[in-house]
Amino acid sequence: MITLDLTLPDTRYPIHIGRGLLDQVELLLPHLPIPKVAIVTNTVVAPLYLVRLQKKLAEHDVEVTPIILPDGEDHKTPGNTESHFRRTAAWSLRTKNYADCPRGGVIGDMTGFAAACYQRGAPFIQIPTTLLAQVDSSVGGKTAINHPLGKNMIGAFYQPKVVIADTELLATLPTRELSAGLAEVIKYGLLGDASFLSWLEEHMEALLAQDPDALQYAIRRSCEMKANIVQQDEKESGIRALLNLGHTFGHAIETGLGYGAWLHGEAVAAGMVLAAAASAAMGWITADDVLRVETLISRAGLPIKSPDLGVAQWLELMGHDKKVESGTIRYVLLKALGHAIIQPGLPKSVMTKLLTGRHIIATEQSARQS
Amino acid sequence: MITLDLTLPDTRYPIHIGRGLLDQVELLLPHLPIPKVAIVTNTVVAPLYLVRLQKKLAEHDVEVTPIILPDGEDHKTPGNTESHFRRTAAWSLRTKNYADCPRGGVIGDMTGFAAACYQRGAPFIQIPTTLLAQVDSSVGGKTAINHPLGKNMIGAFYQPKVVIADTELLATLPTRELSAGLAEVIKYGLLGDASFLSWLEEHMEALLAQDPDALQYAIRRSCEMKANIVQQDEKESGIRALLNLGHTFGHAIETGLGYGAWLHGEAVAAGMVLAAAASAAMGWITADDVLRVETLISRAGLPIKSPDLGVAQWLELMGHDKKVESGTIRYVLLKALGHAIIQPGLPKSVMTKLLTGRHIIATEQSARQS
Ligand SMILES: NC(=O)c1ccc[n+]([C@@H]2O[C@H](COP(=O)([O-])OP(=O)(O)OC[C@H]3O[C@@H](n4cnc5c(N)ncnc54)[C@H](O)[C@@H]3O)[C@@H](O)[C@H]2O)c1
Ligand SMILES: NC(=O)c1ccc[n+]([C@@H]2O[C@H](COP(=O)([O-])OP(=O)(O)OC[C@H]3O[C@@H](n4cnc5c(N)ncnc54)[C@H](O)[C@@H]3O)[C@@H](O)[C@H]2O)c1
Repeated sequence: MITLDLTLPDTRYPIHIGRGLLDQVELLLPHLPIPKVAIVTNTVVAPLYLVRLQKKLAEHDVEVTPIILPDGEDHKTPGNTESHFRRTAAWSLRTKNYADCPRGGVIGDMTGFAAACYQRGAPFIQIPTTLLAQVDSSVGGKTAINHPLGKNMIGAFYQPKVVIADTELLATLPTRELSAGLAEVIKYGLLGDASFLSWLEEHMEALLAQDPDALQYAIRRSCEMKANIVQQDEKESGIRALLNLGHTFGHAIETGLGYGAWLHGEAVAAGMVLAAAASAAMGWITADDVLRVETLISRAGLPIKSPDLGVAQWLELMGHDKKVESGTIRYVLLKALGHAIIQPGLPKSVMTKLLTGRHIIATEQSARQS
Repeated sequence: MITLDLTLPDTRYPIHIGRGLLDQVELLLPHLPIPKVAIVTNTVVAPLYLVRLQKKLAEHDVEVTPIILPDGEDHKTPGNTESHFRRTAAWSLRTKNYADCPRGGVIGDMTGFAAACYQRGAPFIQIPTTLLAQVDSSVGGKTAINHPLGKNMIGAFYQPKVVIADTELLATLPTRELSAGLAEVIKYGLLGDASFLSWLEEHMEALLAQDPDALQYAIRRSCEMKANIVQQDEKESGIRALLNLGHTFGHAIETGLGYGAWLHGEAVAAGMVLAAAASAAMGWITADDVLRVETLISRAGLPIKSPDLGVAQWLELMGHDKKVESGTIRYVLLKALGHAIIQPGLPKSVMTKLLTGRHIIATEQSARQS
């Protein structure tokens, strides 16, 4: 196991990464001031890991209330958040209690938001069970739920007390979900660490085969980079926006195709290829660099071509993205592989070329199946 | 006009207090990075002040979207918060926008919470129009909405960009609401400043007559004391709890009688008398001190006797109060007039005596009308 520390102006928490950590409840216990905890998870993850965790906690006389929500992005709603409140509150109005959640990004985002709002902040613990959640969503305190008007529209910056990333839990994860997580891992290499990018090129097969050491290193390096950026800019007023590499394009894909057609990581993957192509169009990186990006993403089992939404819809969808400030779209582009920058606006000619070019394919072909 | 500064680890904002500030839009403009603002208010306050503010903003080419919500505590609900999101989002998904609200504590708490959650934080401005909101709820960043399971159950700590307390706006406030605000003003004297308490004893008639200088001083001193405490303990992990003087008892009254029967300030007033009586029972203050508290509260037009809820219901209701930690009720009591402390637990004998004693009257008599 290795432990990273994330230090912010008014909190500090450990991120434990390793194999078999779910059974090491001593990692959780110091973060439970009272021996009562709500474990929030979903119908897919509960049968896999809930009883195991519950038993371990019971050995330490920790009273557990499971809150098992339906599976999927569709359920990251105000209604289910409300159901959190109701169940947590019904269980005990007397104390602020932990919302502790072994789960993927969906349950984590929602539980984090519920914890943030419950009595203006209940302590909570993140036990991410997808690679995406282990390298991205469980670290850094972004929490949110969806709203009919937009994804992640309602949320809070709210930090967990501890993050426990057990690589063993990924064994049951569908391959497609593993690949989706790798998109975010590749993102870290692209945005800030060329040598990590090379390491990923060397170890992609090991990662896909879930070699424990490779997984632990990839998660560790990803969390290190995320923690480093979040420490500099917790509330995303500046540099944290770099973490959105591929996301402005990616969100357009997710919205354009309707949520669920592509996984978030898949959309980010194709989005990163567009960001790379845009960077090449700006003359910052070479065509060979773009090819290198495509090759790595493709080897991770991820799409490199974006759906053809039509230039007009693309632009509109990107304008609706929340990373827009005062009317100008702020793109995250690459000055070099391993060095992302924030670029306010792009020439329309570049955008048009990009969104009609070889990185776009007809929508029919682009629908992916697991 | 006088201006106080509230400085926190990651933000800092001015509190302007004075006469006629609503027309001084130059106080708002620096806090509007884009010339677009949602003004959130209610059906009572809108006809009084909305058009005036809107016109002034229009002179500076600021586009205004009014969001006018129904009046009253009953409407501080998830549904109305949702309506905020929908209207703000429908109006512009493209930018983070200001939620700017001339309003009392109800709209302020709700708008603050909506602003806290909208895209994980939209900047917002507080323009409190009740005395209670000017001296208490608009300063310090506590925001919340009610939930069927409890008052202020869902909320966030989220600070405004600026607070503008225009004493002139209180002219239209019903007398009963003015008195309710004075309860919180008296609270500051009781909890931390004996000389302010004496000042209040000398100026109670001036305050009730809305003498502008007296009002400005009372608001200023209240905000100074609140800012000072919030600066030391933004998230209420310690000393901020002192601001709950009278509130543990007060919340029990509000819940016991059903919300709306008594105003918050009225319940706090009677609650402060109980806290004083409990402090006397502990031997910390004298019977004369209690009488002094009662006299001042009574002169402010506030109740000094609590309704007879029955000891059992009292205790149960106080146990449900959110200021409970790990099972022990933390009372805010007085070591002396002007010096509050946090007391974890009280002997049951003291409580029983208190809750059956002369500060309690039969519920029938205690129902107040404006
Ligand atoms: N907060 C952030 O900073 C941040 C960052 C990126 C993404 N996100 C959010 O994360 C969400 C996506 O998260 P995700 O990719 O983890 O999706 P997810 O939570 O939906 O998990 C993906 C699927 O895998 C299943 N699953 C999870 N763990 C499993 C396991 N160990 N074994 C078998 N099945 C398992 C889930 O039930 C689900 O069906 C999105 O809502 C996105 O907005 C948030
Ligand atoms: N956030 C905090 O720290 C904090 C502290 C104390 C109280 N509160 C909350 O504040 C709320 C009570 O606030 P309040 O007492 O301001 O109640 P309120 O907002 O309901 O206002 C009281 C009444 O006066 C009316 N009104 C407001 N301004 C007026 C004006 N200038 N002229 C004429 N009528 C006017 C309102 O429409 C309402 O009918 C409660 O919800 C309470 O929980 C919050």
